[in-house]
Amino acid sequence: MFLSKLDSLNDALKLIDDNQKLMDTEEIPLDKAHKRVLAEDIISYHNSPPFDKSAMDGFALKAENTFNASQSQPKTLKIIDMVGAGCFSDKSVGEGHAVIIATGAPVPDGADAVLMKEYTTTKDDELTIYSQVTPGENISPKAEDIKKGDTVLSKNTFIRYQEMGLIASAGYDTVKVFKKPNVKLIITGNELVEPTKDELSDAKIINSNKFTIKSMIEDSGACVSISHVGDSFKEVRNAIHDASEEYDVIMTTGGTAISDGDVVLDVVDDLGEILFHGVAIRPGKPIGAGIINDKMIFTFSGQPVAAMSQFDIFARKYLFEMQGRKFDLSVTKRQAKLKIPSQLGRTDFIRAFSDDDYARHILNRGSGIIRSMVEANSYIIIDENDEGYQKGDLINVVFFNSLLW
Amino acid sequence: MFLSKLDSLNDALKLIDDNQKLMDTEEIPLDKAHKRVLAEDIISYHNSPPFDKSAMDGFALKAENTFNASQSQPKTLKIIDMVGAGCFSDKSVGEGHAVIIATGAPVPDGADAVLMKEYTTTKDDELTIYSQVTPGENISPKAEDIKKGDTVLSKNTFIRYQEMGLIASAGYDTVKVFKKPNVKLIITGNELVEPTKDELSDAKIINSNKFTIKSMIEDSGACVSISHVGDSFKEVRNAIHDASEEYDVIMTTGGTAISDGDVVLDVVDDLGEILFHGVAIRPGKPIGAGIINDKMIFTFSGQPVAAMSQFDIFARKYLFEMQGRKFDLSVTKRQAKLKIPSQLGRTDFIRAFSDDDYARHILNRGSGIIRSMVEANSYIIIDENDEGYQKGDLINVVFFNSLLW
Repeated sequence: MFLSKLDSLNDALKLIDDNQKLMDTEEIPLDKAHKRVLAEDIISYHNSPPFDKSAMDGFALKAENTFNASQSQPKTLKIIDMVGAGCFSDKSVGEGHAVIIATGAPVPDGADAVLMKEYTTTKDDELTIYSQVTPGENISPKAEDIKKGDTVLSKNTFIRYQEMGLIASAGYDTVKVFKKPNVKLIITGNELVEPTKDELSDAKIINSNKFTIKSMIEDSGACVSISHVGDSFKEVRNAIHDASEEYDVIMTTGGTAISDGDVVLDVVDDLGEILFHGVAIRPGKPIGAGIINDKMIFTFSGQPVAAMSQFDIFARKYLFEMQGRKFDLSVTKRQAKLKIPSQLGRTDFIRAFSDDDYARHILNRGSGIIRSMVEANSYIIIDENDEGYQKGDLINVVFFNSLLW
Repeated sequence: MFLSKLDSLNDALKLIDDNQKLMDTEEIPLDKAHKRVLAEDIISYHNSPPFDKSAMDGFALKAENTFNASQSQPKTLKIIDMVGAGCFSDKSVGEGHAVIIATGAPVPDGADAVLMKEYTTTKDDELTIYSQVTPGENISPKAEDIKKGDTVLSKNTFIRYQEMGLIASAGYDTVKVFKKPNVKLIITGNELVEPTKDELSDAKIINSNKFTIKSMIEDSGACVSISHVGDSFKEVRNAIHDASEEYDVIMTTGGTAISDGDVVLDVVDDLGEILFHGVAIRPGKPIGAGIINDKMIFTFSGQPVAAMSQFDIFARKYLFEMQGRKFDLSVTKRQAKLKIPSQLGRTDFIRAFSDDDYARHILNRGSGIIRSMVEANSYIIIDENDEGYQKGDLINVVFFNSLLW
């Protein structure tokens, strides 16, 4: 009953956006924060480096004492101390003095440059230098990386390995992040069985969506729990009802078409509100979404490829943004390797193999052909106002890699 | 002592490649195989779909019985059965017959097409059709995705969500993959302390490498365990010796320069063999690698940015290929936004922010400036034979995202 009039893609996406939820925050050890999203600004407690630091192994000295030194005209200085990483020298470097210094060690008072060990020779406390340095050379000045009190990262930043280091240097051993959403994935379908090497009896089909959609949820930073239920209204209703009390988001596969066995949207209608059912896209037209007990439910097709595309188009952004991470399709342009027909009034997400220059669509692309997703590394997206492209036209491409958490 | 003559980057990479190890394999539940690497070919036990399957909700019938049907000239057929997903019909579709069929259900004998429900009306067992279909229309033929006995995925394939679905459909509930390497990360440095909000005493510095390098190891599919030891030969030797007995790979940070406190390479020399120490790259020149107890050891700098770059240049490929996953830097071309000087005889990995068209290098890029890695999303790579580039030149860029597992 719901599919008779299709929503446009933009209308459907807006309905999801209007119902976007944000997770609560939690404080976790920094150690566990890799690939989480900051729920606070990071304001540094320290300067980094905390002092003028040597960037080389060599000798701390006054730069002017090195001027004009060369291989043919070496100069001589007196070594008065040695300083390693983790120690301060209590000596002050005066005229004609030098202090042996290690990479990372604090530059002693009075010195304004470090001459690399490679350009020197030593004999007892006598240092012979064969090269000159300018003031500041080979010194990482105090606070050059981070100034105490500076906001070094903003709320909503995704924590890559680089940010891990910056947060540590700012003095945080715990960090406030957005919680991961708990997603309930409900697989519907009497015909579905677990993978087996045995011959399939009756009209059974192996449940592949369980594996693909679970993995896609993981690839969106979220946690997932799976149930498999039959097609009856009662079974599906019980599963969705229970999930709506315990989980942050519900996803289903199967039962979204319009035959009598397709009860999923009837259940959504019964338990809550349908936002839309049926969107002018290909593949994946029978996608639905709704709100039950204030939780978003996405109802994906049973067809494996349709379900994957629907997840990419509708659910990824929702899961990312629940965790405070901005998400937009990262669209780039490529030349069409082949002519691609399309239909006005429908947005196509065409599986493709793209490289630095070209996008070539996968020819065999029924919505049940998982192999077409395996051969692909990208979508070609054809807008509802376009009737397709000629070979050589510049077309919109989204790489699968750019969709991952 | 080791740094006096620098290896070229290619020579150093070849030494690592010559010592590449491959992990053993293990059989794991398919459920856990996402983002692992296949250690066997996947040969399908099944056809998929296992029978001619309806791709739509509608009516299974003989296509020729629909020819010339239209809105103005409807035709009438007799409904003789109904078939849902998971069931076979025991009726045969004859002349003038139709069977109600759900998406995913097996097409009954005698039928050669499915007419979508949208183009029909029904009254009791009388079906009125307003559109025609061609033979095969709306049917996913048996084995169109996968043929029983076909090799659908090859050994060494990285298992994305798509491959998860394909492996399931092929009938595998367990799968043979390469084991994850266990990496021991040994942080050296008396001066390093854990992140703290308290003022740092003496010449202490916060240990950020622990967080960045650990996260990079995780981003390479491997497992990691961390120790922090002081700079003494004995401490470093004990830690590396023990690690070489228990772990698959060893990584260290700090102690790779040439001052007296830099003992890491001396330990490698003592316990095993140094492959190289000192490579003509920037940042990261003091990188070393060696073999101890038949295990690879990478000795990274203590400087945070140098350590990250060294990991990307030397260790990622090693960890990927230990797990059977091919890895090459994914180099693309961008226009230089600014002029970039470089030095002959040295390969530069310059932190940059790149978009679809341009690469702009980060100006403040001392090897201790973690912020430069945070502002960057890519490396500009300048070959040892290039003296730099002018604004507008096409240059080699590697996006950080392309390096991840």
